[in-house]
Amino acid sequence: MVYIQRRETFSASHRLHNADWSDAQNEAVFGKCSNRFGHGHNFQLIVTVKGHVDPQTGFVMNLVDLKAIMMAEVIDHVDHRNLNEDVPFLAGIMPSTENLAMAFWKRLSPAIEAKGAALHCIRIIETENNFVEYYGE
Amino acid sequence: MVYIQRRETFSASHRLHNADWSDAQNEAVFGKCSNRFGHGHNFQLIVTVKGHVDPQTGFVMNLVDLKAIMMAEVIDHVDHRNLNEDVPFLAGIMPSTENLAMAFWKRLSPAIEAKGAALHCIRIIETENNFVEYYGE
Amino acid sequence: MVYIQRRETFSASHRLHNADWSDAQNEAVFGKCSNRFGHGHNFQLIVTVKGHVDPQTGFVMNLVDLKAIMMAEVIDHVDHRNLNEDVPFLAGIMPSTENLAMAFWKRLSPAIEAKGAALHCIRIIETENNFVEYYGE
Amino acid sequence: MVYIQRRETFSASHRLHNADWSDAQNEAVFGKCSNRFGHGHNFQLIVTVKGHVDPQTGFVMNLVDLKAIMMAEVIDHVDHRNLNEDVPFLAGIMPSTENLAMAFWKRLSPAIEAKGAALHCIRIIETENNFVEYYGE
Amino acid sequence: MVYIQRRETFSASHRLHNADWSDAQNEAVFGKCSNRFGHGHNFQLIVTVKGHVDPQTGFVMNLVDLKAIMMAEVIDHVDHRNLNEDVPFLAGIMPSTENLAMAFWKRLSPAIEAKGAALHCIRIIETENNFVEYYGE
Amino acid sequence: MVYIQRRETFSASHRLHNADWSDAQNEAVFGKCSNRFGHGHNFQLIVTVKGHVDPQTGFVMNLVDLKAIMMAEVIDHVDHRNLNEDVPFLAGIMPSTENLAMAFWKRLSPAIEAKGAALHCIRIIETENNFVEYYGE
Repeated sequence: MVYIQRRETFSASHRLHNADWSDAQNEAVFGKCSNRFGHGHNFQLIVTVKGHVDPQTGFVMNLVDLKAIMMAEVIDHVDHRNLNEDVPFLAGIMPSTENLAMAFWKRLSPAIEAKGAALHCIRIIETENNFVEYYGE
Repeated sequence: MVYIQRRETFSASHRLHNADWSDAQNEAVFGKCSNRFGHGHNFQLIVTVKGHVDPQTGFVMNLVDLKAIMMAEVIDHVDHRNLNEDVPFLAGIMPSTENLAMAFWKRLSPAIEAKGAALHCIRIIETENNFVEYYGE
Repeated sequence: MVYIQRRETFSASHRLHNADWSDAQNEAVFGKCSNRFGHGHNFQLIVTVKGHVDPQTGFVMNLVDLKAIMMAEVIDHVDHRNLNEDVPFLAGIMPSTENLAMAFWKRLSPAIEAKGAALHCIRIIETENNFVEYYGE
Repeated sequence: MVYIQRRETFSASHRLHNADWSDAQNEAVFGKCSNRFGHGHNFQLIVTVKGHVDPQTGFVMNLVDLKAIMMAEVIDHVDHRNLNEDVPFLAGIMPSTENLAMAFWKRLSPAIEAKGAALHCIRIIETENNFVEYYGE
Repeated sequence: MVYIQRRETFSASHRLHNADWSDAQNEAVFGKCSNRFGHGHNFQLIVTVKGHVDPQTGFVMNLVDLKAIMMAEVIDHVDHRNLNEDVPFLAGIMPSTENLAMAFWKRLSPAIEAKGAALHCIRIIETENNFVEYYGE
Repeated sequence: MVYIQRRETFSASHRLHNADWSDAQNEAVFGKCSNRFGHGHNFQLIVTVKGHVDPQTGFVMNLVDLKAIMMAEVIDHVDHRNLNEDVPFLAGIMPSTENLAMAFWKRLSPAIEAKGAALHCIRIIETENNFVEYYGE
């Protein structure tokens, strides 16, 4: 079993805001992350796929295919977008990095399995100091 | 003459959009950077100050002072903010990285000169691939 | 279960030296790391916390709280300090990176559990080539 | 149990090419990675060793020894080399990053065990976007 | 006058070898960089363009155009290629990083001037320790 | 004229302290950088050399020679050392990053000129946020 990883980046804006709460409560929990017009990040998405190495190719999975899946399922939908407003598959989801990781898993896992490999981990780097990992359960 | 540099970061959203233009023209020039709800970046601001070294301190300028100036004049106004909507000193300015560099110069230069040093360069890293430098003229 | 990570940095000096050994034995084992007046590093501390995502906040744990714990329990005690001389919770401990990871775990784990989450991993980056990870057992 | 990691780099060329296939099939699977005269990378090799901390040294394993093993078993053979042509221990192996990780494991694991520690993971960073990990099974 | 910078990467192989010299002389001057089958790097190319900021766009030059020029004039020719064998515009040129910088200048400068801006600097990062800059004269 | 750059690293400790001042004055100016037992950094030293490209080698200067000069003149003296106590050529010099840059220039410039090239810039990266550059005048 070998694990391969592919990194892609996207630049997006978001706002952490719970519509069920008062402004004061949002401010208390989310602070500046709840500012009305949002803010943004250069997010890095790192996908780990596990599988056996094909003796004909030396590959767990062709990175060309993995890149194409990452672009079609995630990056093309979120890059240069507002994560609260623009992304149908994030509708109704607070776009915290934790929730992004789980939402991206749902889109990436079936597409990777369709290629005969298995998604192992979603890692999102939000800033140089804040990261999230999700292993699907 | 020695040059000292201090890096600070801020996470902000922006949209490149010329209100004098049609949507089609904005799309043609700015592409996805013109999407309606904006996008965002982890910006890095690197300020270069030049001066002589004080023999008592070994410093061109105390980095504690330089950091305080960068925070008070720029970072506190733009971090976790929307650069089109939230920043009084950017009102009426298209928030391209070039224009940010020039606007930041105007705020930082007098404050640094008031400490007896001279601003030499504003560098802004917008993404891992795009950067701007401005030397004041 | 989602894993969140927060990075903080500290600049400290240390010396690897076993007082039970002769100078020659210290030199043989620790080499230049045993030089009498010490040396130093820009350490990076990366803390991983695991937990369930709160549906109200989208957070495993508020990173503002995690940062505050890291500062109060570790960074404020070690930043710009000599790890052999200045840190009460390291008294009698050889400040190797391995031992730092275990000592930091003891301070961080109870404080993180008091917030309803669980410490998963301590990672310390000592130089761009040397790193340590500790999972608590 | 603590995990220590050491990073070393090597600059090498390689070509992904299956001699049992037609040129068209190689092109279809490997694309530009199959170009006749090869291409190259600055590879980063990160080795993770696990073990108990020696109370006399504070070390899982002396990094001087780990570095010496990495140099003697891997880096000295692959740095500034062509991985298809120059490396006896890679003869007959398609030099994909996956296969490099498994081949390096075979050389590093016995040498690390001879020092009383255990190899835990081989990580290879091929580019800033592509990485592989192998845990020995 | 503002300076904008765009980074692109390419992975290539090369060999430093002077055909007018004996093997011993090549070995003495170029060492392992002269190994027969070559080696390789992940090169980073950073292009600096200077110009005035267009008040309509906030741009010195549209980075979409700069990226397209870098791809068409340089990256598409050198990425995943052998710099000694595969690149017509490098024929007869020893592919040292210095010579690459000067050769890339000749291709990029006219294309950038055709867009109304001026090439200011070519920077090539060959490894994490070795870099070259060229300013056109 | 082409500029080549070589990066080397060293891990050292230092303390900013003016012996002519009271403790309170040292604390007021240098803050935590003046703590009695010092602190430390992973310093990066980047040396820029300018010159013409030798048509026989494609080099401004052989990087093997530049590395050897950097090691012999600077790195071997400061790596894993205390900059206040251990380095004869820093005796009587407050080891601020500014002063290190000027002291390193004095040692590196004659050695580089002896090889027929010219030192252009000393850059020291002290932390990920603080840097200094010195051009010799």
